[in-house]
Amino acid sequence: METATQDRAPRYLQLGRAIAEQIGTGTLRVGEKLPSVRSLSSERGVSISTVLQAYQWLENQGLIEPHPRSGFYARIPHSQLVPEPSYQSSDPKPIKVGAMPTLGEILRAAMDPAKVSLGASAPSPQLFPTTKLNKIIRRVIQEQPDHSSRYIFPPGLEALRREIARRSIEFGCSFTPDDVVITSGGIEAIVLSLRAIAKAGDVVAIESPTYFGILQALESLGMRVLEIPAHPRTGMDLAAFERAVKRHKVKVCVIMPNCHSPLGYVLPDEAKKATVEIAARHDVALIENDVYRDLAFGERRPKPAKAFDTNGTVVLCSSFSKVLGPGFRVGWVSGGKYKTQIESLKFVGSLATPSLPQLVIAEFLAGGGYERHLRRLRDTLPDHVQAVTHAAAKYFPEGSKLTRPEGGYLLWCELPKEVDSDKVFRAALDKNILITPGSIFGTHKKFSHHLRLNAGMLWSPAVERALFELGRVCSAFAG
Amino acid sequence: METATQDRAPRYLQLGRAIAEQIGTGTLRVGEKLPSVRSLSSERGVSISTVLQAYQWLENQGLIEPHPRSGFYARIPHSQLVPEPSYQSSDPKPIKVGAMPTLGEILRAAMDPAKVSLGASAPSPQLFPTTKLNKIIRRVIQEQPDHSSRYIFPPGLEALRREIARRSIEFGCSFTPDDVVITSGGIEAIVLSLRAIAKAGDVVAIESPTYFGILQALESLGMRVLEIPAHPRTGMDLAAFERAVKRHKVKVCVIMPNCHSPLGYVLPDEAKKATVEIAARHDVALIENDVYRDLAFGERRPKPAKAFDTNGTVVLCSSFSKVLGPGFRVGWVSGGKYKTQIESLKFVGSLATPSLPQLVIAEFLAGGGYERHLRRLRDTLPDHVQAVTHAAAKYFPEGSKLTRPEGGYLLWCELPKEVDSDKVFRAALDKNILITPGSIFGTHKKFSHHLRLNAGMLWSPAVERALFELGRVCSAFAG
Repeated sequence: METATQDRAPRYLQLGRAIAEQIGTGTLRVGEKLPSVRSLSSERGVSISTVLQAYQWLENQGLIEPHPRSGFYARIPHSQLVPEPSYQSSDPKPIKVGAMPTLGEILRAAMDPAKVSLGASAPSPQLFPTTKLNKIIRRVIQEQPDHSSRYIFPPGLEALRREIARRSIEFGCSFTPDDVVITSGGIEAIVLSLRAIAKAGDVVAIESPTYFGILQALESLGMRVLEIPAHPRTGMDLAAFERAVKRHKVKVCVIMPNCHSPLGYVLPDEAKKATVEIAARHDVALIENDVYRDLAFGERRPKPAKAFDTNGTVVLCSSFSKVLGPGFRVGWVSGGKYKTQIESLKFVGSLATPSLPQLVIAEFLAGGGYERHLRRLRDTLPDHVQAVTHAAAKYFPEGSKLTRPEGGYLLWCELPKEVDSDKVFRAALDKNILITPGSIFGTHKKFSHHLRLNAGMLWSPAVERALFELGRVCSAFAG
Repeated sequence: METATQDRAPRYLQLGRAIAEQIGTGTLRVGEKLPSVRSLSSERGVSISTVLQAYQWLENQGLIEPHPRSGFYARIPHSQLVPEPSYQSSDPKPIKVGAMPTLGEILRAAMDPAKVSLGASAPSPQLFPTTKLNKIIRRVIQEQPDHSSRYIFPPGLEALRREIARRSIEFGCSFTPDDVVITSGGIEAIVLSLRAIAKAGDVVAIESPTYFGILQALESLGMRVLEIPAHPRTGMDLAAFERAVKRHKVKVCVIMPNCHSPLGYVLPDEAKKATVEIAARHDVALIENDVYRDLAFGERRPKPAKAFDTNGTVVLCSSFSKVLGPGFRVGWVSGGKYKTQIESLKFVGSLATPSLPQLVIAEFLAGGGYERHLRRLRDTLPDHVQAVTHAAAKYFPEGSKLTRPEGGYLLWCELPKEVDSDKVFRAALDKNILITPGSIFGTHKKFSHHLRLNAGMLWSPAVERALFELGRVCSAFAG
């Protein structure tokens, strides 16, 4: 199904996007009537059905609306009517992270496949290259029947490390296979890095809000946390970051400049460079959570902050979970000057890494399948996010605010202040809908009226229905 | 190839073992001549070639020797001439575990498949049920193509936990699937248990010598260690253990009463019960490393100490690595009263466990393949251990001492005092032979003239040659 054309999207989608761009740039003004289906068909030399599909898509995106017996009109998309989440900078103090009692509940709920999952951050299984990966599995077990009969000790399978290193040139780094340690997913990479750099009692700076796994890890390691406010579009407040590292003895800062979870922003190179420079100036190591970078929207793939590292103190953590499937549990870390320590902790903690997932992903990368798959996924995801944004904008209570993600498939939603998202979580669960409440993305109920939505699901009536129901649940709490 | 007969061993092996038993019990005395091949053949109603094979096997085991132009004579096996490693009890003090610089070298060496591996503890790949497991992999990816598209969060795949719980009745426990957490191999189970029970600075009692992974884990966790001497046959000195826990505030003790690594003993039920009682009396938790129990020699499979646990303070850690293949990295823990904490640490550290290995092993267990495979493996391993013992007894320098393992496939060798096993390790490596030096099985050079041999390899001229060379290396250092 591979074609060599520049734009591999179907005709209707190419047409729909062209019109969307006209609306976005104001070339086609809000309230203006669109050409009739027939005239656009002949004008563009496409079939009637292609135009109809394009208009349907535009309507789904909330960009046009039908007027009875008149035709389609451009409209302001719901999502543009919804403001971005609020932001206020502040100068935090280091604190101990408390346990997160809700997390157990969330986990148990997440294991039930009957739920509509707007919770865990994972796209629909249909979006993974399952057929191709299974073909490779068959080949590997044919060619290397005793694939799992030996330990693959850290740093992990050489062929896989080579593929990762080979690609690092493209994003402004130049790893050798020896720089890379294979881990059990991105989170193990981050936790091992934290343990390699800091110890119990040490202060770790993080963006706020931050992926709850980081907070959990800091809690379990007894490290103190310094939550630097992050703007929903421009990221961590660098002035606040610099004040913080001047004032407190910060050992390491965990950052996510690309496709931030949960905020969705992609920072420009200058911001990444500035972050690295501030950290280096104050002798603060950086752990970069880079698991979604490959899923940034737009033509060019952004660089990681690691690309601006000059002294080996930026540790880059990534994973294939978000692109190939989380069940493989294959992540990796380029540990800079902490590499040996990370490798040793990996050995101590689990001795070796499962063989078959490494062999399979290495083959997939070597065969070029990864890049082909990625192109398709990057092509698809913005529409998913757009559709969920549109539905949330339509169904969520007055006063709700939404991020405008520049990559990945996560949406961060600020609900009216009086809505307790833990309660929303439980009420939604009763309706078989899974979300992640904001409370676990920060300490001290900072984000208690927020929630994170997984917009990686294939759009379907069930998903739309779930968002509608979720909106009702939220509205009920909004009183 | 499955047969329903009681003894599934080939005819020659049945015959050989019967004669070996006669020598062992003294029915056939040392120096006595064995029946001629022809007369034994007609007497037993087996072919000439079966008798020849049986005699060959007995000769390989060191139990008979040919006298030219006369026939075969019973002899004292080399291994019985070799004494067991020495043992001295003592009352240890808690100490910090230091880093193990040799470990990095050992690891790097272990990754080279060109070496004759008497190092890592793993049987020959040929001994794993590769064909059957690969068949199941094909079936799983056929029936559940998106096997790896979702997270399997802790505690892990329900079907696998159910199979493990189901078997627990057989060894005197009665777990429910909810008691079990799936981990990345046995060592992750142990490390998570240690972290759930103790913290940096706490005192952890261990048997001495002990599997080096435990020492490493304690070092990386900043816990202090109390090394209770373990006798090569009767295990940890319980009187010393009780004195130690009376004298020092011991949080937890890591034990391996079945197929101890490196000593190979299997303790009787009474000793296990006594250990559990002492621990309970002094409020000490027990972590039981049970990864080789399924490989105990003899008809009956021993119970774990966990079977004598009355208050949930024994944590049982096991794995499929030693029986199905270490590359799957599937282990498990029954955490008793620490279960919730262990599960939560698993989640924090690596979020989920790889899906495919869990699905495959669950299927293998459910289909009954595990027990069939285990019978064959248990049938085979004693011969491997015997063959390596025999060769070591023959080739190692005067004054060497060897354990008499009752399970698993590890042999612990005490060399003459002047032999530095780190040097032996390096010299053997130059000859492409991999061993594990004793130095890493205890602190403070306690076992610096010891080495651990993996006797799980298929017997071959290359393995015999390696043991011969290793003997020469050791002899050279013995001066």
